[in-house]
Order: sequence, then structure tokens, then C-alpha cells
Amino acid sequence: MSALMERLDALARFSDEEGALTRLYLTPSHRAAAEAVRGWMEEAGMTAAIDAAGSVAGRWEGRVAGLPALLVGSHIDTVRDAGRYDGNFGVLAAIEAVRRLRAEGVGLPSAVEVLAFGDEEGARFPVTLTTSRAIAGTFDPATLAAVDPAGVSLREALAGFGADPQAIPALARRREAVLGYVELHIEQGPVLEAEGLPVGVVSAIAGAARYAITLHGHAGHAGTVPMALRRDALAAAAEMMLAIERIARAGGELVATVGQIEARPGAVNVIPGEVRFSLDLRSPSDAAREAARAAIAAEIGAIAARRAVHPAMERTYEAPAAVCSPALSGALEAAVARAGIRPRRLPSGAGHDGLAMVALCPIAMLFVRCKGGISHHPAESITAADAETAVAILGDFLRHWSPDEVSDAR
Amino acid sequence: MSALMERLDALARFSDEEGALTRLYLTPSHRAAAEAVRGWMEEAGMTAAIDAAGSVAGRWEGRVAGLPALLVGSHIDTVRDAGRYDGNFGVLAAIEAVRRLRAEGVGLPSAVEVLAFGDEEGARFPVTLTTSRAIAGTFDPATLAAVDPAGVSLREALAGFGADPQAIPALARRREAVLGYVELHIEQGPVLEAEGLPVGVVSAIAGAARYAITLHGHAGHAGTVPMALRRDALAAAAEMMLAIERIARAGGELVATVGQIEARPGAVNVIPGEVRFSLDLRSPSDAAREAARAAIAAEIGAIAARRAVHPAMERTYEAPAAVCSPALSGALEAAVARAGIRPRRLPSGAGHDGLAMVALCPIAMLFVRCKGGISHHPAESITAADAETAVAILGDFLRHWSPDEVSDAR
Repeated sequence: MSALMERLDALARFSDEEGALTRLYLTPSHRAAAEAVRGWMEEAGMTAAIDAAGSVAGRWEGRVAGLPALLVGSHIDTVRDAGRYDGNFGVLAAIEAVRRLRAEGVGLPSAVEVLAFGDEEGARFPVTLTTSRAIAGTFDPATLAAVDPAGVSLREALAGFGADPQAIPALARRREAVLGYVELHIEQGPVLEAEGLPVGVVSAIAGAARYAITLHGHAGHAGTVPMALRRDALAAAAEMMLAIERIARAGGELVATVGQIEARPGAVNVIPGEVRFSLDLRSPSDAAREAARAAIAAEIGAIAARRAVHPAMERTYEAPAAVCSPALSGALEAAVARAGIRPRRLPSGAGHDGLAMVALCPIAMLFVRCKGGISHHPAESITAADAETAVAILGDFLRHWSPDEVSDAR
Repeated sequence: MSALMERLDALARFSDEEGALTRLYLTPSHRAAAEAVRGWMEEAGMTAAIDAAGSVAGRWEGRVAGLPALLVGSHIDTVRDAGRYDGNFGVLAAIEAVRRLRAEGVGLPSAVEVLAFGDEEGARFPVTLTTSRAIAGTFDPATLAAVDPAGVSLREALAGFGADPQAIPALARRREAVLGYVELHIEQGPVLEAEGLPVGVVSAIAGAARYAITLHGHAGHAGTVPMALRRDALAAAAEMMLAIERIARAGGELVATVGQIEARPGAVNVIPGEVRFSLDLRSPSDAAREAARAAIAAEIGAIAARRAVHPAMERTYEAPAAVCSPALSGALEAAVARAGIRPRRLPSGAGHDGLAMVALCPIAMLFVRCKGGISHHPAESITAADAETAVAILGDFLRHWSPDEVSDAR
């Protein structure tokens, strides 16, 4: 096993729970993991500290001190009962790439700052991306009042962690001091595995919207109401779910998911009079997502009218897409090609810290193949060979890229 | 308000619950209702008693004592939070019809026995039709061990009611002493209301089967798995539900209902990996029901194969149809026609005591229009005019029918 894989295993031992990996933002296990990451950054030759929001930031100066920095990183918080690669891999891969370049005596035309964010999963508080928003300069102090399920506020949790809520606004980077943000992350999907590729370059982090759809039909006795006299809310929902699938399949990189459904009254011998179901809609193109929403809403309306059920569609969440920088992504892709791997662009359907960082600077992401597309689960897995390939590509990218190349998104 | 409607209201006051009608088999409220019914039978001139299974049986002799009897009745147990007409109407209508004939001095060529069964709804024990099976001679003593949710066995409940479990087998009527079984009941469906008819004659009590269908697909992240790589168990279920509806719509009097559905893991941002749903299938023709089951199973198999999900279909319940006697139904229909009403034959999608009685004798049922097809709910409603029409038709039927007419099913 490689040193990087061993270090990923070591990092996975910092957990709020015995026998499972659960490392929520600002918990004691998050503090312990952050201290370990800071130590590894320092071992790699960086000047490192844990900041006022709980991020670990390690800086490696370029050929001369004080140059603008390329930010490279990911997050070290996890969901409950998590896998060990989501987030953590991107942080340790960045430290390893810097360690190697420095060991080889390479000097870069920019500084490199490695970041280990702490609030990407949003698994503790009803807010998320606190740590990356702090650096991007979009932190909202009102979120300090958010409370976790135990009633602890974000403000209290920061203080308990040893961080300083008052100092968070000062973490915002000056735009002229930052060149871009690059993140390595496991794919969390099956595309690279299906195509036999170890890595892929992200085109955009998909925008997402969620909806709650409610249908009111007419409940009735399963034996006594003839088919022609029914206003079955579940049969209507079935027709709508197929329409949603059909629209999504025609929508290129768009995905649509109905993950929750409830039929009421929910008895084996009663025609459902009411159905609620969820819709999660994502696309790297906000325009494509909006077009799909409109098409779905029209289908829901038409099906409901034909079946005499009353529909309601409520948006419960929306976040726009973050498009990756063509220049920074192109430089990453060039490094992929130099490694002898066919460059593959793919969208990220999952959210990442780049959603916050895009407000500050150009962003780019390199995805690493993961087994079965599984994430947020202890079975999450990557191979040591793919991890090594990704680290080598990141190092090669850092060695070759030029700060002038990223002007497209400034 | 008519005397019959007033008596239905009075009977509805016997409830296990304050403010709602809940009268489960062998409860104190069932006992009190049975005593009241026995009193009303005696007032109407019958010799009445509560039997060893909890039925109330009142006998009105024909022109000479000891003639074979036509059985007429329904049930006085209810579901929880019930309406006041389901079952109860058929019992009180029969008593009222006998009272009127006797008051008019009519003598019949057979005895009439009015029955108030006590276990039609099956709302207390996991067995049902105990009281009518006792009379039909199909009571199974093994069911005495069945327990209600409070842990009380049927045997204990019978003893507590003042009935005698040991004497139940002796309740079985000799076939030669019985001419048939006729029941008046609310339709529990919307057909008569939709056609503007106060009553209809039942062609058969539908046979029913229930199935639990389980689909295993592949759970995945709602953002990261492209539509083409999904094995979405809920999308598969949606396609199956529409196929079920299509097959049922083509199936004449067949009805198919998916009343329960559960998607797992059931998160807004996770593709469902597993879905379970119920299927309730009913038809007055067992052959038609079996053909529909086979067509549905074939569609489920084909859809599952196309979508790479694994299907399982388990039968959880089955009861064959009980076909009504053409002769007895014809005599009922003649009475309907004499009342100036267009005779309408329709199947009963709901189960009734006739499902047990058909093992003993020819059966027939007259349905009475109910508001909105609603039953098993406090909003259950019939008009006094329809109730009067039904009682008049029952009386006219009893006055005109001949015991010789029912030979078809003996």
C-alpha cells in the first residue's frame, strides 16, 4: 500500500463514532483531524495554520515570497458513517503533490496554498460551505445563529473548536492574491469506471433544484370503484414519474430523480387519494435545468388535468451551477493527456466547495474513479494506482501551468 | 325522518368509542347492539336469540311451522370510525320488511330467518366471517386461537361475550332446512349514484387476491449517476403501475389497485434502490382475475428485465369469487322492476358474508345507492327514500318469490 493510502487510513481514524467514520464540522474529531493535517502540511514544507472558520491552510511560497497563490484543496468533514476518500483524498493528494515538488527542488511562478475545508457536507448545521465561503468572502454572519440538532449554535461550536467567529470576515482573500482554485475529488458516480478511465476533468458543478409535488385525487374502496370512475393519485404520480424520466433522458447531462414518495391513506385495499413525491433536478447548465423544469411542470399539469387530480409543485431548494474555468481545466486536461490518459470532461452532479470558491476565482476539478460510483458509505473505494495517477497529474499540472493562462475567468 | 333511519341512528350509538362508531366483534358494544337487535326482532314478531358465535338470529315461521327458511341479513360489527349503514342497514331493513309483512297478515310458503352477523369486517382478529362460517358449517376451530392486538384470543373473547366456543359447530344449518341467503347492503361504490339508480342486484361477490411486489435496483447519488446508467427501482415501479392500470382498464369488471408504496432509502437526493408496492386485484370472474395476474406478472418481468432490476411478486391473500344465484337474483330483479326501477346487475368488489354463505346455499344481494361511493367512514350516507325503496323491494320479493325458484344452485 502506498504512503498516501496509508495516510488516508490514518486520517479516517479521527471519528466522532467508534467503528464508523463520522466527522462533523467543528467536533473534537474534526479538531484532531485538522491538527494532523496541519502537521502533514508542515512536514511537507508549508507554513500552516487552522483559521478562524476551522479550515486548515498551508502555504508554499513560489520562486519569490508573496506571489499570488493557486489554491488547491478539498474538505475533511464527512457525512455520518462515511467513506474515507470523499474530501479527504483531495486534501492529502494536494499535500503529497506539494511535498514531491518541493523534494525535487521545483520552484513555481506562484505560491500554492493547500486548503482543508471543514463544512462541505452540511451534515451538522442547516447551513453549508461555511469554511470556503469565508475564504471566498461570501460568509454571511447571520448563519452563526444556525443550530445543530443538539441545539448548539454555529457561533458556539466555533468557539468550542477554538476558532474565532469574529475573525471570519477577515479570512476573505483579496482577488489579486488568488489565481484559482483546483480540487481533486472522487467522482461519486459510475461514469469513469464505465469508461475505463482513472480520472476526468469536471466541466461544471451542476446546479440543482428540489421540488415537493403533491397530488390530490379521490380515495376509494379498492373493490368497489370501477377503473373508469377512479381519480387515483398514485396512478397519476406513476405517469408523471415516467414523464420526468423521459424528459431527463432527452436532456443531455441533466439528471432527474424521484427519491421519496408517499401514498395516503396507504392501505392495501384503498385507492390512494393523496400522493407526495420529491423531485431533484440537476444540470451543469442552469438554462437546461430550467427548461426541464418547465417541461416537467407542463407534463404534470396535463396528466393531472386528464386524470382529474389536483397538482401542486413547490420548490424547496435551488443552487445555480458553477462553471469550471476553461483555461484552468484545459491546463489540467493537458496534464491528463501527458499522463497518456484520454481526457474526458464530465459534469459534477454533486456539490463541492467550488460552488463557493467560484465567487472568488476561476475553479477547476479533477475527478478520480471510484468503485461502483459509491460514496457517502463505508464501501467507498479507490485504488492506490488511481490515487497515484491523480497525484502525479496534479504535480505535473502545477509544474507546467502558467498563471497567465487563467485570465479567462478573471 | 323515517322510523328505519331513526333506528339506524339508535343502533349507531352502540360504540366502543365516544364520539365515533367503532363496534368490533365480541366487544361490550357489540353485545349491547346484539341485545337491541334481538329486542327489535322480537318486537317484529320473531323468535330471536344470540347464538354461540355471537350472531343474532330471529325466526319468523311460514304458513306452517318448521318449513325450510330463507335467510336474510347482514352484519352489525363495524370497522373503526365507521359509517352507520354498512351492515347495520341490511339487518334493520330485514327486520322492518318482516315486521310489515307480518303486520299485513301475510303468510309465506317458507320460514324467514333474519341474521345479524358479527364478524364481517375482520377488524379485530386476523380471521373473519366467523359468524357466517358457523352457520354455513365451515367454521374452523383452529381459528379460536387467533388473537387480537391486545393479546385476547377469539376463544377468550367469545367466552367474555357470553357465547360458547364449544357450541359453534352445532350452529351449522342443515342444507335441507335452508333455501337461500339474501342480503341488503350499501353499494360502497359510485356506480348506482353515477347511473341515477337507487338499487342494483349483485351478480357476484368479486374474488380477490393481494400481492406484495418488491424490486431491487441500485441506489445511487441523485447528482452523479447519468440517466443511462441508472437502475432506478421507483422508475421501474412507475412503469409497472401504469401497466397494471392498463391491464385492469381492459379487463371489464376487473379492478386493480396499488394502495401502498415505499421507496428506499427514501432520501430526496438518492436514486431508490428498492421499492415495495402492494397490488389488490378483484373480479367477479376468477378466470379473468387469474388472466390479469398472469398478464401483470409478464409485464413486471419484462419491465424489470429491460431496466435491470430484480422483481419478486408474492401472493399474500386470495379468496375466490362467490357467484350469486341466477334464480334468487332474478326474483330480486323482478321485484326491482315491479318498483318501476331499471334492473342493473353489478358485481360487488367488497367482500360480504355471502362469501361464507355460498358454501351452504344460493345467495343474492341487493345494493343500495350510497353518497359518493363512501364507506368505512363517518361520512357514509344513504337517503331515507332509497332506504324505503330497498325495504319495499325486499318485502315485495319475499311476498312473491317461490321456494321452487331457487333450485338452480342446489
